[in-house]
Amino acid sequence: MGVVTVPEHRFVISLGCPDRTGIVARISSFVAEHGGWIVEAGYHTDPQTGWFFTRQEVRADSLPFGVDELRRRFAAVAAELGEQTRWQVTDTGERRRVVILASKEGHCLHDLLGRIASGELDVDLRAVISNHEHLGPITRAHGIPFHHVPFPSNAEGKATAFKTVQQLVDEHSPHAIVLARFMQILPPELCEAWEGRAINIHHSFLPSFAGARPYHQAYERGVKLVGATCHYVTAELDAGPIIEQDVIRVDHTDTVESMIRKGRDIEKIVLARGLRAHLEDRVLVYGRRTVVF
Amino acid sequence: MGVVTVPEHRFVISLGCPDRTGIVARISSFVAEHGGWIVEAGYHTDPQTGWFFTRQEVRADSLPFGVDELRRRFAAVAAELGEQTRWQVTDTGERRRVVILASKEGHCLHDLLGRIASGELDVDLRAVISNHEHLGPITRAHGIPFHHVPFPSNAEGKATAFKTVQQLVDEHSPHAIVLARFMQILPPELCEAWEGRAINIHHSFLPSFAGARPYHQAYERGVKLVGATCHYVTAELDAGPIIEQDVIRVDHTDTVESMIRKGRDIEKIVLARGLRAHLEDRVLVYGRRTVVF
Amino acid sequence: MGVVTVPEHRFVISLGCPDRTGIVARISSFVAEHGGWIVEAGYHTDPQTGWFFTRQEVRADSLPFGVDELRRRFAAVAAELGEQTRWQVTDTGERRRVVILASKEGHCLHDLLGRIASGELDVDLRAVISNHEHLGPITRAHGIPFHHVPFPSNAEGKATAFKTVQQLVDEHSPHAIVLARFMQILPPELCEAWEGRAINIHHSFLPSFAGARPYHQAYERGVKLVGATCHYVTAELDAGPIIEQDVIRVDHTDTVESMIRKGRDIEKIVLARGLRAHLEDRVLVYGRRTVVF
Amino acid sequence: MGVVTVPEHRFVISLGCPDRTGIVARISSFVAEHGGWIVEAGYHTDPQTGWFFTRQEVRADSLPFGVDELRRRFAAVAAELGEQTRWQVTDTGERRRVVILASKEGHCLHDLLGRIASGELDVDLRAVISNHEHLGPITRAHGIPFHHVPFPSNAEGKATAFKTVQQLVDEHSPHAIVLARFMQILPPELCEAWEGRAINIHHSFLPSFAGARPYHQAYERGVKLVGATCHYVTAELDAGPIIEQDVIRVDHTDTVESMIRKGRDIEKIVLARGLRAHLEDRVLVYGRRTVVF
Repeated sequence: MGVVTVPEHRFVISLGCPDRTGIVARISSFVAEHGGWIVEAGYHTDPQTGWFFTRQEVRADSLPFGVDELRRRFAAVAAELGEQTRWQVTDTGERRRVVILASKEGHCLHDLLGRIASGELDVDLRAVISNHEHLGPITRAHGIPFHHVPFPSNAEGKATAFKTVQQLVDEHSPHAIVLARFMQILPPELCEAWEGRAINIHHSFLPSFAGARPYHQAYERGVKLVGATCHYVTAELDAGPIIEQDVIRVDHTDTVESMIRKGRDIEKIVLARGLRAHLEDRVLVYGRRTVVF
Repeated sequence: MGVVTVPEHRFVISLGCPDRTGIVARISSFVAEHGGWIVEAGYHTDPQTGWFFTRQEVRADSLPFGVDELRRRFAAVAAELGEQTRWQVTDTGERRRVVILASKEGHCLHDLLGRIASGELDVDLRAVISNHEHLGPITRAHGIPFHHVPFPSNAEGKATAFKTVQQLVDEHSPHAIVLARFMQILPPELCEAWEGRAINIHHSFLPSFAGARPYHQAYERGVKLVGATCHYVTAELDAGPIIEQDVIRVDHTDTVESMIRKGRDIEKIVLARGLRAHLEDRVLVYGRRTVVF
Repeated sequence: MGVVTVPEHRFVISLGCPDRTGIVARISSFVAEHGGWIVEAGYHTDPQTGWFFTRQEVRADSLPFGVDELRRRFAAVAAELGEQTRWQVTDTGERRRVVILASKEGHCLHDLLGRIASGELDVDLRAVISNHEHLGPITRAHGIPFHHVPFPSNAEGKATAFKTVQQLVDEHSPHAIVLARFMQILPPELCEAWEGRAINIHHSFLPSFAGARPYHQAYERGVKLVGATCHYVTAELDAGPIIEQDVIRVDHTDTVESMIRKGRDIEKIVLARGLRAHLEDRVLVYGRRTVVF
Repeated sequence: MGVVTVPEHRFVISLGCPDRTGIVARISSFVAEHGGWIVEAGYHTDPQTGWFFTRQEVRADSLPFGVDELRRRFAAVAAELGEQTRWQVTDTGERRRVVILASKEGHCLHDLLGRIASGELDVDLRAVISNHEHLGPITRAHGIPFHHVPFPSNAEGKATAFKTVQQLVDEHSPHAIVLARFMQILPPELCEAWEGRAINIHHSFLPSFAGARPYHQAYERGVKLVGATCHYVTAELDAGPIIEQDVIRVDHTDTVESMIRKGRDIEKIVLARGLRAHLEDRVLVYGRRTVVF
């Protein structure tokens, strides 16, 4: 499997709260007094909102207790930092569960399957769910369960289909639900149920060209770059907090078809980067913006 | 002056017409029968509109006549290609006249002055016109005439100011009028009078964040890249044909101020590239799109 | 399969010869006199060597004859352009045959298989040959024959293994032999036999970090970007003509492992772009340099 | 001057030492116990060497004492962290003194002068020293002293010239000596005297194409990207610790001249970014590598 190394077992502390002096000292002293070895630490203060954010990776074997006890003890520290404080403590030893929703366009799914097969993306892919059959064989060849849920064009049929999808997803309590070019708009109740876990890849550099057929829009406008955006799904279409974006150069020799082809390479990379950041608990959302440590 | 070399004297033939067989053969045979040496040639067919575009650079010393006679003779060839044909023949021996409109933000002006001073951009910069005084001294230190035209905030005063600007510009019959962060919206009659010659640099990756304060808009939206767009000015704000665009990565640590700073580097480069392409007659406009040979 | 469209049937004329006046006229007149419709044309003169290069795509249905007759007739034109002239006429209707050599690192193979499966890369992948077993199952799941050829570490065993590989490759007369992170150095006789068809992806921005463990070299040197290079294989290691390169930003937080991970995304894209350009007959080699139309 | 805002007065603590538990806690507690408000903090552990690095910006007005007292007190904290610890405390209120060494190629100098004039780069540029006259007028027009120190081609004359340069530089005790395409190789004693302060811009993506005429080397090799590298000057030519690098795409249509032109844009940006990082005390060197916070 080449260069795959067994990652060190770590606990990840993430926290956001209104800024004030002494937060870093409080958290790092807490870690230090238990002998915790911080191997990576990110700090950020947003000058506009006055919020403070941090993410710290601590070697699990440097602490005298497990993640539950760490969580219990850190709760007291977080409480000192005020009522608005949001925090979590996660364990890299718990493999991340993922479900992918796909449609007919296979490039993002192929890419994720390849990353998992090569050991680069070490996740527990529980299922792929699609409104079309034809990505089934390759998914199953990778040893991943594939569910075909047909989506009728009428509203009622769609609602029923989404209920089925929700059941198939929720039974895995996934850390991430990836819309890998799913092409169906999630109903508001699913956006809410999966808030902060549903990740979409949109095939444009948002906010340009939201909605349908972004490459056609880009072609019409005559832009010199096309892009892709990985973002959390919210009830407002293509307007959720952005995790990652990138672009690629095009020129007058490009047709819509070649823009689509070039853009796919960006979609694949942007989705993979965004998903990795999310699963490593590197993304902290505030309003429509994200800190990506 | 370092690596500056005297460029070869060339004639540039540009043409656009509805596509059909034999156009390349017709034009290249015309050049060949006079012994013309083509040193650079670009061809493009737009599959959507069915238009054909070409740009050819011919060594001036390979032809037995000058640009006027070339123009006269080529007119006959162009006529054969149909009524809709648009074409021009230009002479690289005629130095390009440029007028720059600036405001208070000096980075684009400084950059263009530096490129001219270092010999990289070999143009005849006739004048810099600004609605503020303070870029005057450095402009004049470069030996360039500087005109201060105050812009009152009332509509009537603005209209008068624009008349003054137009006079100061038009007396030079410039090949390019560069809005180097001019920050004033050209009135429709100037957009028309300067059509295809007025070039703007907008400080966003259009069509995202058109209009005022694009970096603030970008910050609010939480994008992960900011950009700049060089485009021809048209009556519709920030909607003209795009010549060049580029972007630079930002992240959560960036404030509006640092986005502005990083974005300026992109603005300078995108404007310089777009202006160069325009002055070398590399840009052919069709509708809202451009061919940039 | 999404946006896959049936590509138009075309003939591709490529030619290189010492530059002189009238070449474009001669070729385009030849095409025009048979009613040929040129849909894409590239021209380039290299000022240093004085060589002229062109590549032209002609709609097959615009000509009154097939590729063999076109080839026969074009031979006469090429002959007029001098003895040094190198040319070919190819037919996009002939599907490109490809053989991939791989080792243990699967990311490039996974990527190519995904591109083929999604219809983006429309090639006839005849076989994957590897010195390790473990990419066999996924290759076969894609319906592609997989051959395991063990490579002993002794010179004699290797020579025998390469003979087996050569047989397995040559029976397909492939247009491209892709070394998708093959990690074995081709012997000189194979470099010669496959000249202009063997394509390698090297995991650095050549000429930096040629040879073994380029990411480790990059890490030691403290560079701020890592890259990948797609090039033709020649007898001199990692020194063949470059088809495509790209880079990605890294910083002090990157370990060798994360450089490897980020670099893989670039390797995949650079190899896919380079292979596509090669198979579309867009690459013309002269000396150590390439024209990529 | 547009968007220039008065930056907050801050003290910057930088430190590197062998990693162990509790360092962050120790430093942040020290800051907190004096009421210090950390507005930006970076932490990095290098897994290979086991060294820990940090940089912290503290609001000056949040501390009850000035920079000298902070330095005195922090010395005790640093001492606790072991003998190998290297640290400094700087004051953003002390304007950074800069001297530029230039030759004939003006683009980097023009760019820095423009950034200073537009307020983007807020430094105290004490002098420009050049072995040629001709950048004198524009430097003086910006109000900056210009010294012409002719460099004879014989070794003795060069040594004398370098002594003059050293005197002209050292009288300003500059925070940075910028070799803005100076084109003369610093003698070892100057490399040593100015260690960690002399910053060079090399016109290639190092380690490719070190030494003379890198664009010519790049052209000969047929690379598809050219770049620039900003690095600290050391006695080994073009081998010092890298601060920043970037690249730009080129292709077969590029001549050496157009590579030079495109490369200049990258040189200017890379130098400006590297210089800014250095002057903001963001760069920590260890061996041949840098942490750039």
